Amino acid sequence: MADHDAAPPPVVVVSPDTPPAPPSGPPPKASHRGRAPAPAASSNEAAEDLPELEYFVAAGPRGFPSLAEFLDILEVDMGKQADQSNRLQHHTDFFSTDYLVVRRGQEFQIKISFSRPYDASKDKFAVEFSIGPSPQFSKNTYAPVFPTPDRQSSWAGRVVGAAGSVVTMGITPAADAIVGRYHLYVAVATPYGIRRTKPDDSRDLYILYNPWATADAVFLDDEAERQECVLGESGIIYHGSWDDVAERDWNYGQFDFGVLDACLYIMDRAEMPITNRGNPVKVARIASAMLNSRDDDGVLVGSWSGDYVYGVAPTSWTGSTDILLSYYRSRSSVRYAQCWVYAAVFNSFLRCLGIPSRVVTNFFSAHDNDGNLKTDIILDEKGRIDRKNTRDSVWNYHCWNECFMARPDLPAGFGGWQAVDATPQETSDGLFRCGPASLQAIKHGELCFPFDSAFVFAEVNSDVVFYSRKRDGTMEVVKVKKDHVGRMVLTKAPGSYDRRDITHLYKFPEGSSEERTVLEKAELYGCVREKSELPAADVDLLLPSLEVALGDDFQLSLEAVNGSGQCRTVEAYVSGSVVYYTGVTSAEFLFKTPIIKLEGNQSVKEVWQVPARSYMRKLVEQANLHFIATGKVKETGQIVTAMKVVALHTPKLSIKVSELNKVNEEMTATVDFTNPFSFVLENVYIRLEGPGVLSPVSKYYGLLPGGSRVTWMQSFTPRRPGTTRLIATLDCAALRQVYGQIQLDVLP
Amino acid sequence: MADHDAAPPPVVVVSPDTPPAPPSGPPPKASHRGRAPAPAASSNEAAEDLPELEYFVAAGPRGFPSLAEFLDILEVDMGKQADQSNRLQHHTDFFSTDYLVVRRGQEFQIKISFSRPYDASKDKFAVEFSIGPSPQFSKNTYAPVFPTPDRQSSWAGRVVGAAGSVVTMGITPAADAIVGRYHLYVAVATPYGIRRTKPDDSRDLYILYNPWATADAVFLDDEAERQECVLGESGIIYHGSWDDVAERDWNYGQFDFGVLDACLYIMDRAEMPITNRGNPVKVARIASAMLNSRDDDGVLVGSWSGDYVYGVAPTSWTGSTDILLSYYRSRSSVRYAQCWVYAAVFNSFLRCLGIPSRVVTNFFSAHDNDGNLKTDIILDEKGRIDRKNTRDSVWNYHCWNECFMARPDLPAGFGGWQAVDATPQETSDGLFRCGPASLQAIKHGELCFPFDSAFVFAEVNSDVVFYSRKRDGTMEVVKVKKDHVGRMVLTKAPGSYDRRDITHLYKFPEGSSEERTVLEKAELYGCVREKSELPAADVDLLLPSLEVALGDDFQLSLEAVNGSGQCRTVEAYVSGSVVYYTGVTSAEFLFKTPIIKLEGNQSVKEVWQVPARSYMRKLVEQANLHFIATGKVKETGQIVTAMKVVALHTPKLSIKVSELNKVNEEMTATVDFTNPFSFVLENVYIRLEGPGVLSPVSKYYGLLPGGSRVTWMQSFTPRRPGTTRLIATLDCAALRQVYGQIQLDVLP
Repeated sequence: MADHDAAPPPVVVVSPDTPPAPPSGPPPKASHRGRAPAPAASSNEAAEDLPELEYFVAAGPRGFPSLAEFLDILEVDMGKQADQSNRLQHHTDFFSTDYLVVRRGQEFQIKISFSRPYDASKDKFAVEFSIGPSPQFSKNTYAPVFPTPDRQSSWAGRVVGAAGSVVTMGITPAADAIVGRYHLYVAVATPYGIRRTKPDDSRDLYILYNPWATADAVFLDDEAERQECVLGESGIIYHGSWDDVAERDWNYGQFDFGVLDACLYIMDRAEMPITNRGNPVKVARIASAMLNSRDDDGVLVGSWSGDYVYGVAPTSWTGSTDILLSYYRSRSSVRYAQCWVYAAVFNSFLRCLGIPSRVVTNFFSAHDNDGNLKTDIILDEKGRIDRKNTRDSVWNYHCWNECFMARPDLPAGFGGWQAVDATPQETSDGLFRCGPASLQAIKHGELCFPFDSAFVFAEVNSDVVFYSRKRDGTMEVVKVKKDHVGRMVLTKAPGSYDRRDITHLYKFPEGSSEERTVLEKAELYGCVREKSELPAADVDLLLPSLEVALGDDFQLSLEAVNGSGQCRTVEAYVSGSVVYYTGVTSAEFLFKTPIIKLEGNQSVKEVWQVPARSYMRKLVEQANLHFIATGKVKETGQIVTAMKVVALHTPKLSIKVSELNKVNEEMTATVDFTNPFSFVLENVYIRLEGPGVLSPVSKYYGLLPGGSRVTWMQSFTPRRPGTTRLIATLDCAALRQVYGQIQLDVLP
Repeated sequence: MADHDAAPPPVVVVSPDTPPAPPSGPPPKASHRGRAPAPAASSNEAAEDLPELEYFVAAGPRGFPSLAEFLDILEVDMGKQADQSNRLQHHTDFFSTDYLVVRRGQEFQIKISFSRPYDASKDKFAVEFSIGPSPQFSKNTYAPVFPTPDRQSSWAGRVVGAAGSVVTMGITPAADAIVGRYHLYVAVATPYGIRRTKPDDSRDLYILYNPWATADAVFLDDEAERQECVLGESGIIYHGSWDDVAERDWNYGQFDFGVLDACLYIMDRAEMPITNRGNPVKVARIASAMLNSRDDDGVLVGSWSGDYVYGVAPTSWTGSTDILLSYYRSRSSVRYAQCWVYAAVFNSFLRCLGIPSRVVTNFFSAHDNDGNLKTDIILDEKGRIDRKNTRDSVWNYHCWNECFMARPDLPAGFGGWQAVDATPQETSDGLFRCGPASLQAIKHGELCFPFDSAFVFAEVNSDVVFYSRKRDGTMEVVKVKKDHVGRMVLTKAPGSYDRRDITHLYKFPEGSSEERTVLEKAELYGCVREKSELPAADVDLLLPSLEVALGDDFQLSLEAVNGSGQCRTVEAYVSGSVVYYTGVTSAEFLFKTPIIKLEGNQSVKEVWQVPARSYMRKLVEQANLHFIATGKVKETGQIVTAMKVVALHTPKLSIKVSELNKVNEEMTATVDFTNPFSFVLENVYIRLEGPGVLSPVSKYYGLLPGGSRVTWMQSFTPRRPGTTRLIATLDCAALRQVYGQIQLDVLP
């Protein structure tokens, strides 16, 4: 125990000193030093170039030919035009881009012009692909592709043909290749070292997921689904209420110029390791966190507050392109989103990268209950919802995404459609992301499998438990509604603008024995259910369905049905409130306290006139009315309830287009709106766009007096043939969700 | 479609305006408005009081007795002293606190003094517990407890006895009750309303997890384990190398004044919903994210850089108390930690809340490979590690935690010990947290179960794959080491200061058929393994174990063993580098290129003198030397390798204590250190503390010349009887990991 450099000095006893003050200024940022050999490669943008020359020695080994005798590379033709076979065969011809875009697990071809004809027997060359910083063979961020069968890597290569000095090389990226933007080099081996093409971004290419390739984890064996869920740009997103469904059109815009770069930037911004980007499970999970701005400065800021002056109202957007490009260019989160905006932009992201996906809407979606199977609603003594004590909410509807992929991280049988949700929910595993959760796992109650399957299960399966809060603060369960939540799940049908009910992908029919078994299994995994066995009431309350236009007077009826042979008296309370689509109550506008006397087996209907003025001044956001009726049966003491959500119909925008529907021929769209109300609409925005025909444009109108009209003529030029839509919204604080659309069949 | 308030005005066509500029200044913060009925209850500190009077009416109903006839509450005796039976029976007597601390699922007793004797036949009262903001019966944040069998809630209550006007009330919190700090009230029901005790914090109590209660999810049926893993304050954390294990003592300090509040604050800071805090799976998961500062401004900032002037060097800490109290008081992250500091403070957190836990050390822990079963090491043509291209690392050791709990979220059979890890790893599911991962799931390769079991599996099971990087940039696998990673997992034995090898809890014996099956199962879940089948080499290289003291010269030997009958020639490279404990290389200090000629079945040893001066100037941090020998067998072309980590032994601190080991009697500790080197040690800190005897204290010495000595006398007073330790560290940039400890048996 001695340093051998010098003799030990004499022993001196040292006394303690005053410790120095810490340095002023903030401490330095964390570095990887000592922790890891290098920072993790997590940026596709920060790509590194390969050197033009490697291991180059000044003089060749004795007896070797001069360097001039080896192949030199004159030109590389990427075959990147939209009408060339690479793009057509890889289903990437819709991308508006200056670069080649292909899919993994499928051959594409490039043409290499050498300085002289290629001789397989003596010339050695490789086509090299690299992605991200410090590309590594062992990390699959560097992939060499060889022309001869004896030297193949995980990316297959072959010479397809040669004409003079031009070699056509076929390249098949591995079916699990990393997805993103690659550099391409051609390298020739000489005894002097490697001679490689100069770095040149024009040879860059994008490699995407490939639902058409059987070996890809996202392989989807259904051409109609692939056309819709990968190539479809026109979306329909459902909202309103399950018995009066409304539609929003949406332009996913996944092929628009710059959108692919924006999608890759989202993964860069998340610092997602490059090596994980070929795994669709990890990409979907990261993106579910990144599409919202919580935790990670992701794409979209949520707001349900009604005050959107710092951005665009969620109801005003017509498509994803503006949002993704704004995030990409400004590098800051875009304001504002609600659930369908998150789901729509997430859908653009997934389709852009080639992961099949669709937006779904769940009507009556349980929220804020942390994945338990109980949504608690507390009633006060008058049968009104006790707002102070009711903390859970059932959203009138909630939108999320499904994406299609194998799940090698789970036992066999759980691949296929996976639920993912980018809307920040308060309590999904403590962080703002959700999924991918296997729909098969949700349907069969196998809730132990990642990610967040118990949470999605609760969104479609929760019971609504009504409590009556007693004077001493304790609560009594008075009613359990088992069929309210997850009333219907809808998505757009492939290849048409029709609805498709996919509730059966999430659960067995209400009341079936399979459903009971699954709910019992869910309890084994810790889901909490309400167990109170309440005797079935012999009186029912019914609130019939209503279709009401915003600004109309209407009739509200409450029907009491006596299923018993005896007389019954129901002391009822009917409360009508304006609610957000999240189920959060804003203001009560109606309160009635009928006492309904029923003979045996009789039913009686009470009817009230609801004048428009009673609710118009209290409206918020999406103009939903929520009615709840609670009654106490005098003779039996039982509590009966009924609930009804009425989504008021908003006026429509009208769009017309001029006649000539041809590619590259100018057309005119006319957007027309008349303010049907007697009051002024202020700060009105109208937006208009259409997949393949018109990039997003908007107009602002400071004041639209009652009864006044706007007419906006917009010229546009269809860029490609096929069926598409023009989509318009009108939005202002007093009137949201005004939509219009028109279908176009563009001829070649 | 018309507002009926007024006649429609005439139609005016409006033209578009210039849209207004967005408001200046930053947009407002997100609010819950419209999104949720109320902000989520996620702060234990922000507790709300219940009103003293509720539903109080001015005059009583006709014919009711006057209010004066009802019970009034004069005093509540919480029985909160450390030597009272509540604390003794609940194993909470060690807590230094002014409040009652009890465990759930087990009865405790309070004494209520009323204004007159209690009459069960007519008096109605309840003891009420509330936690957090807006306490709710349906969320279990409000729990009333009743004295009579007819009115029981999920928290049981009974009258244990009465003496005059004093009632002794027994209360058993539900075995799944929320863990945290509660308010307590006594409420008397009268026809006039509720009469309740005034808010008074002195009645607050803490309810903790209870490993002694069979119905608690953390029930652990082993008294020795409970004593160690819940009540143990003195820890040993292993480090060094598996064939030369070193120890650090640690004071977990979970019972120290303020530590329990600090632990609850960590959950508040994470905004963890109060309702989840009774679930040990969720608490452990949140805490694994919160113990590090990444993502969430959690407790500890990691640094492996060697520059710790902005805080305390990780090697300098002696216990958790300073760290937790500093975080709690300053509300900002504490600098600096490395893996054992994260694990030690996480352990304090878990033990403090009553979740059984222990710190474990895994020797040769695979990192940075994103849960794959391959750790890639790239060798250049000379057999040196190619630092530019090697991105993975194997840590010499890594510390994490195990905690004991049921896993109702998984199928049966995966409860018990769970691995959790608070050290921020680059790539665990994209976020800096890990676990709880069931050890049973890891051992049996059931890697589909949350959380992060595949990641922990890789830490103990990865293969080390050596590649040789060729001139053209391609790589060839030259060696796969299957038994290197996860060489041994150690934890402190319960009730002693001995080591306990728990490797078998993580995996089946190396080479067993069970091990093969498990590795195959892991591949089914997507773990990537190296499949190259390399012929077994007939020559072996061996680097024997070494125990070297810092500053000593030593001999390095390399043995080549020829297992074949023929002559063999090995062209070997031996490289010695200084490395961080993370396996990251700092500087090479030795490089030899022996050519070893071997007769058939011969073994030859090459020996080199390594002078201290060759490595001393290059040392970093924990003074680890890493040797790697690579050889190419000329006759067969095979590559052979050997690796060895030598953890240099640092000098020791000496601690002596004066003789009288008795509670409340002053004693003196003498810490003694002589600088054994010829060089000056600068900016030296010595720290000293001991569970139950001495709170953390430190001394600073600006300069310790070579050969000089420090002697520090510190008086202290044992607070309770039993075996404990004094723990000291000495730390400066040039010399880290200098430890000393002494055991004390304090008499009552």
